[in-house]
This record gives sequence, C-alpha cells and structure tokens, in this order.
Amino acid sequence: MAMLELSPSSSSHAIKASTFHSSKLSYVPSRISHQRRLNVRPPPRTRHAKVFCSVTSKEVQAPVAVPTEDPKKKSECYGVFCLTYDLKAEEETSSWKKLINVSVSGAAGMISNHLLFKLAAGEVFGPDQPIALKLLGSERSREALEGVAMELEDSLYPLLREVSIGIDPYDVFRDAEWALLIGAKPRGPGMERAALLDINGQIFAEQGKALNAVASRNVKVIVVGNPCNTNALICLKNAPNIPAKNFHALTRLDENRAKCQLALKAGVFYDKVSNVTIWGNHSTTQVPDFLNAKINGLPVKEVIKDTKWLEEEFTEKVQKRGGALIQKWGRSSAASTAVSIVDAIKSLVTPTPEGDWFSTGVYTNGNPYGIAEDIVFSMPCRSNGDGDYELVKDVIFDDYLWSRIKTTEAELLAEKKCVAHLTGEGIAVCDLPGDTMLPGEM
Amino acid sequence: MAMLELSPSSSSHAIKASTFHSSKLSYVPSRISHQRRLNVRPPPRTRHAKVFCSVTSKEVQAPVAVPTEDPKKKSECYGVFCLTYDLKAEEETSSWKKLINVSVSGAAGMISNHLLFKLAAGEVFGPDQPIALKLLGSERSREALEGVAMELEDSLYPLLREVSIGIDPYDVFRDAEWALLIGAKPRGPGMERAALLDINGQIFAEQGKALNAVASRNVKVIVVGNPCNTNALICLKNAPNIPAKNFHALTRLDENRAKCQLALKAGVFYDKVSNVTIWGNHSTTQVPDFLNAKINGLPVKEVIKDTKWLEEEFTEKVQKRGGALIQKWGRSSAASTAVSIVDAIKSLVTPTPEGDWFSTGVYTNGNPYGIAEDIVFSMPCRSNGDGDYELVKDVIFDDYLWSRIKTTEAELLAEKKCVAHLTGEGIAVCDLPGDTMLPGEM
Repeated sequence: MAMLELSPSSSSHAIKASTFHSSKLSYVPSRISHQRRLNVRPPPRTRHAKVFCSVTSKEVQAPVAVPTEDPKKKSECYGVFCLTYDLKAEEETSSWKKLINVSVSGAAGMISNHLLFKLAAGEVFGPDQPIALKLLGSERSREALEGVAMELEDSLYPLLREVSIGIDPYDVFRDAEWALLIGAKPRGPGMERAALLDINGQIFAEQGKALNAVASRNVKVIVVGNPCNTNALICLKNAPNIPAKNFHALTRLDENRAKCQLALKAGVFYDKVSNVTIWGNHSTTQVPDFLNAKINGLPVKEVIKDTKWLEEEFTEKVQKRGGALIQKWGRSSAASTAVSIVDAIKSLVTPTPEGDWFSTGVYTNGNPYGIAEDIVFSMPCRSNGDGDYELVKDVIFDDYLWSRIKTTEAELLAEKKCVAHLTGEGIAVCDLPGDTMLPGEM
Repeated sequence: MAMLELSPSSSSHAIKASTFHSSKLSYVPSRISHQRRLNVRPPPRTRHAKVFCSVTSKEVQAPVAVPTEDPKKKSECYGVFCLTYDLKAEEETSSWKKLINVSVSGAAGMISNHLLFKLAAGEVFGPDQPIALKLLGSERSREALEGVAMELEDSLYPLLREVSIGIDPYDVFRDAEWALLIGAKPRGPGMERAALLDINGQIFAEQGKALNAVASRNVKVIVVGNPCNTNALICLKNAPNIPAKNFHALTRLDENRAKCQLALKAGVFYDKVSNVTIWGNHSTTQVPDFLNAKINGLPVKEVIKDTKWLEEEFTEKVQKRGGALIQKWGRSSAASTAVSIVDAIKSLVTPTPEGDWFSTGVYTNGNPYGIAEDIVFSMPCRSNGDGDYELVKDVIFDDYLWSRIKTTEAELLAEKKCVAHLTGEGIAVCDLPGDTMLPGEM
C-alpha cells in the first residue's frame, strides 16, 4: 500500500504530542511518523486514453492486451469487456441510458463477490442502465480480481459493458460516478482499535486524494470498510473538490436488521416497519431509533408495549446480529451486507416513498438536530432520486434517545481526534472510549 | 445420510457380478451392498400441516417455535418468515401471483449463497412473484442454514414470504414447484469417479423418491450437483410419478462459457452470439456446438475462419474455464454457476427469443437426432415460457460434431450402467472411460 503525504504535522510534532498528551493518550500513530516522508503521492497523472481492442471486421481477432508502462500498476480492461460496441447503433440498446462508471474497492472480497453481480444484473440501477465496473484490489489480490472478471464474463450480463481491474486508485477511480469503498484491513489479533483507525484511515486518505484527482466531480461515495464513519470523514477531507455531501458511511445493514427485529417482536412482516433511523456511528454505540420508527404506520411504542425490551434488548439484538451470524454460519455477513449496499444506492437513485426515510452516515454540516458538526453521522434522509438527499426534519427526541445520540456523537468526535493526522487537522490524539467495533465487520 | 432401498439386486448378486464382469469392471459399488439393508426408507409420511406463528393482534408476540416430534429432522419456518400475512388484503401485493415453492438442496453452500438471494430479489421469477424458499441441508450444516436464513431475514426482500430449513428431503420438498438440487459430495482425495457416482447417486435416488412422494406433481427439477446428468437420471428414475421431462441437468454454465469464448475469438460482445448448444454430458466429453451456433446471425464458421481453433482449442477453453478460475480465484465458480441456474430457470419461464434456443440436459425419450434413449443428455431446447420445453429440430450435424456426440453419449451410457443399482435396473457395471469430471465442480 502506498503511504500518503501527511500535513501539517511532522514526526517531531507527533512525538512531542505523545509526551504532552500522555494522560489522555492510549495510542499515538508514531509508526506513521516514520513512514510519512518515505513515499509522497505523485501528482495526479494525465488522463490515459482507454484502450479498446479495435475490431474492424468480423475476421477472427483476439482482444489486444492494453499497453502500459507498468502493467502491474495500471488498470486494464478485461477480456470480452475490452471490445468496442456502439449502444446507440443497436435496436435493443439504443434507448438505454449513458454508461455509468462504478468503482469498487475490495473487489476480490466476499461482499463484492455478491455486490458486483447485483450491479451487473441491473438490480441497482435498473434494466436500461449499462454499467462499467472498475475493480480495485491489492497487489496480493490481483489474480483473484481476474477470477472475478472471468466470472463476470461468463455471466453474459447484457448491461455489463466494461470491466477493468487495477491496484492503483488513481487509475481505477478515473471518471467514477459511484465509488463503493469496501476494501479495508481487518483487525489483526491484539490490534488496538486506534491502530486499525490509523491503518484503514491511511487507505481512505489515499483513496480520497485519488477520488479528488480523477473521479467525476459529482461522484457519490459509499464507505463500507470499517470503521466506516471515520473512514468516510477521512476520505472526504482528502477530497476537497468533491462535495462533502456526496460521501456516505454504510449504516443500512443496521437499519435493515433493526427493521427485522422490530417486525419479529411485533409479529408482523418486515414490510410493515418504516421510518427506522440508525443514528450515529456504525459501532456498538449506534442508536437504532424506536421513538420515531413506525409499524403499520403507528409509532412503534404503540405497537410494542414492552419498553424494557425496546430499551434494553432491541439495540443489542441489532448490534449483535453480525456476531451471531458468524457463529452460525462461520463467515461474516457478506450477502446481506451487499444487499444493504444495493438498498443504500437505490435509496439515492429512486424517490423515497411518501412519509418514509432511510438512514445513511453523512457529513454533518448544518444539521437541524443539534448534532456536532464536521463528523460523519448516520441520520434520517430522503431523496428525490437524483443521487442527492436531504435530512428529515420532523423527528422527535426524548431524553433516552438524545442521551444515546450524545454517546455515539462523543465516540465519533474521539475517533476524529484520533485521525487528525489523516484529515489535515493537526496532531492525532487517541482517547477512544471502550472497544466498540462490531464483530465480523470488514 | 439415510441409505436407500435398492432393487432388484441383492448383495450376493452384486458380489457375483464383481466376479463375473471382472474383465470389464473397474469398480463395483460393493460397499453399497452391505449398506443397502441397513436403512430402508420409510414410506412417505402423512402431510404435516404448515405451522404458522399465529398473530392475532398488534400486541407484542414473538414467533412461536414450530412443534415437531423430532425438531432436528423436521423442516421449520424461520424467524420472521413464520409470520402470517395475507397478500390479497394488501394494496401493494394484491395483484401478485400465487406464492411459489422453491426447494434448494445444498442450501448452506456457496452456490446457494448466491442463488437464494437472486431468487428472493425477484431476479428469476419476476417482481410480482412471491416466493417460499425451502432450504435443505445436512445435519452438519444445520447451523449454517440458520445463518443463511438470518441473512435472508436481514435482506428484507418483499417477495420472500416464507423460508423454512430442514435436513429431510421428505419435509423440505413438500409441495415444491421447483427443486434446485445443488448439494452433492465433492470428490475426496483419491476417490474414483465410480465411487463418486455411487455416493452422489444415492443422494439423488433418495431425493428422487422424496420428490415423488411429496413434491408438486409438476415440479421442475434442476440437478446441479455432479455428475449432474447421471444424478438427474437417477433422480427421475426414482420419481416415476413425476414426468421425466421435468428433470434437467445444468449445462447452462457451459453454454454461457462457450458463448463468451466465441465472442472473444470473434471480437464481438457476447450478446451477439446465439444458438449455442452444449451436447451431452456435463464433463470433459461435453460438445460445445460451433456448427449450429451463430454470431450476429451468421454461422460461426463464416465469422471465425480459424477451424483449427474451433476444433482443437474452443472446446478445451470451455471445459478448462472452471479449473482456470480456481487457479486465479482460489475457489470454484459459485457466482457464475448461480447466474447460470438463474438463466436456466428463466429460459423455462419466459418465451425463448425468436430463432434462438438454450441448452439443458434432459431425458432422451423420442429425440429427433438419433441420440440413445433413456439417458439425460444436453440438447437444444425452446420454451414458450410455461416451464416446459421442446427440442429444436432444425439443427445440422457433420462428421466431426456427430463423432463427438457419440463419445459423450458413450460416456453417459457407461455412467448409466454404473448406477444401475440406483435406477432399479439391476446390477451396476462400472466400465467408465477416462476421468472426465470437470475440475472444481460440486
């Protein structure tokens, strides 16, 4: 992984900080201090023309390999997806929309293995939206990326018109209209949460810079890799030319799980549950909101009278779902995570049903609730389907809800301080509350 | 796994056969001879009423566990899918079709992990077809089945109305309108092909009996577990009350791969390739037919003039695709296999495009080509979308194509003799040609 340029602090500052803040400091990313001068990210490259395998006749011709200076670094079109085509010239495809570029990081992982096929099948953007998938992996996963591309080839999806693979975000994010940032390092044994924040934060800082340099100016970014809220914050801080509003941290799986648990408790099918907000961080401090949620159009509290369950068991059930699943199934919840990413995108590209809303972690910048500004916080949103959203204003708070919102807010503010070296806001100070990572989250 | 009743041979016959046919015999399933009297399948049970968790008010009520005599054997509805509902009473669902029952074996495996979510999303049967998924696993995979059901819950698919899990096909196949038989034992190290045929054949014999006893009288069965052609033959022979025409062996992934390879060679996008038949067995003797296939409506041979490639490389490329993918990706092709199962079902429930066809392994019973009767052979088919199909008559053969069809036919006839003890046709005689299993196939 390429290391990133850090500013404005220097190693000596960081070391000083380590001494100065020792009473509050549980972790200082000093390892970074040594690395930060090793590899300064080169300026964005000039645009590389996409190389198609030109096909001029019906004569036999295998796709031509893409010429690159360093084939291991450049993203390359793959196999049948290198071929030229003209959608406008064909009867079946002439009414299709313009091709959309979707970049996916962690593309060789299990979540992507579900998600990419859903994207290619038209499940997300619809049956008249041709799609280009740009797959970002690591040096280590390069062969696996080819395997994914081969399976996409063999699936013969009509809407899937381009697939390219690469390991450099400056290539893979080029002209991206959606960037789905799934790849992140899992926490190793004994690794402190602050260390994970730092390691993954570096990835998202680099990817933010890459998006800033090469992506579409209105790219929508969904951060899935954990800790996703703070990763999203790091990413947007490193992409000043892209609207901060365009960055999302995925809390949709939590919302979906909360809906399911409320449905189970109330004895109704899950389609009867609406207006569920996940407030705050995608961690165990998250706040699934049963005060504003509805079942069959009625406030949850009028349907589920068991306040003790709501206050003491419900949230835990939502948070512990991932861990329970790992225990049963032996793997983390790749399939339902992919479904929730589909849901998150669809919520932005289709109008929100009348009276309902969805949760997504977004940048706080003038929110009506009084939540701290300048963090990424999951809140209730609506969309008219243009990819943008607005915050829902008509929500209510009680002391119970508000106190829990303050707890998750405090955690996010602490995480933010812990990654200050990655957001360009000075010296990192890591004073994190207890370990609140969700189990099995990637 | 429950052993099955075998007839008409007895162990002494089998042992005698072993001596008598020694010149031709590479394997005699003598292990079966010892087991066959151990566990005679009980007669089909009386119908168990489906137990819903009755919900009578909006009062809090957790789903009631399904009472069973032996909860480990019975299939059970899972979680939120135990709830009652009335599709006709709701505005959004009142125009939906009648619920369809889809049973899936090997439901805790990777292919199913892709397929189940596609089924639930409406990708296969459409957006107005509510679906009940009945998941069959093994004793060992029971917990994993629960994990799958949990992820299906958390996905909140509106069309997915029932999920039940179980380990007894006599429960799980009850009223099945589609049975997707994916589960099979993988070949262990050093296991002979004949031994695999025997082990998996027993599974499919038992499942055939179960389908015969409890499934819908017009259930459509797609056998994916390998060796799938002969497994399908065993299955249909054990289900005499279900039309033999309703059983399919999956060769659609081979067809998809063949289309992709032809597209690559011709330098066209894969949607330009049509009329591709896979003839025969889903093994390395399979015959991807380039004589009848078309590219942009023209015979392949008019577009791809490289006859040497067509005759010597094309088929190998199709067959070796799975192995190449395992090498790249480290796993077998679960995602694209699931896509091909979706394709196979969709080909039966939607009208085949004018002039085109699809491949599926079906029971030979009066075929127009002169292929041996009474085996399961992949052939070109068309459907009007009612779930049924007819064989395509206007195909041509040349010496090259026909000689290869005869080779795969010979293999299937040999496989059939090797499982005679499972089809009720006497004593098994295993004289199989070389090892022709495809790598990584499950």
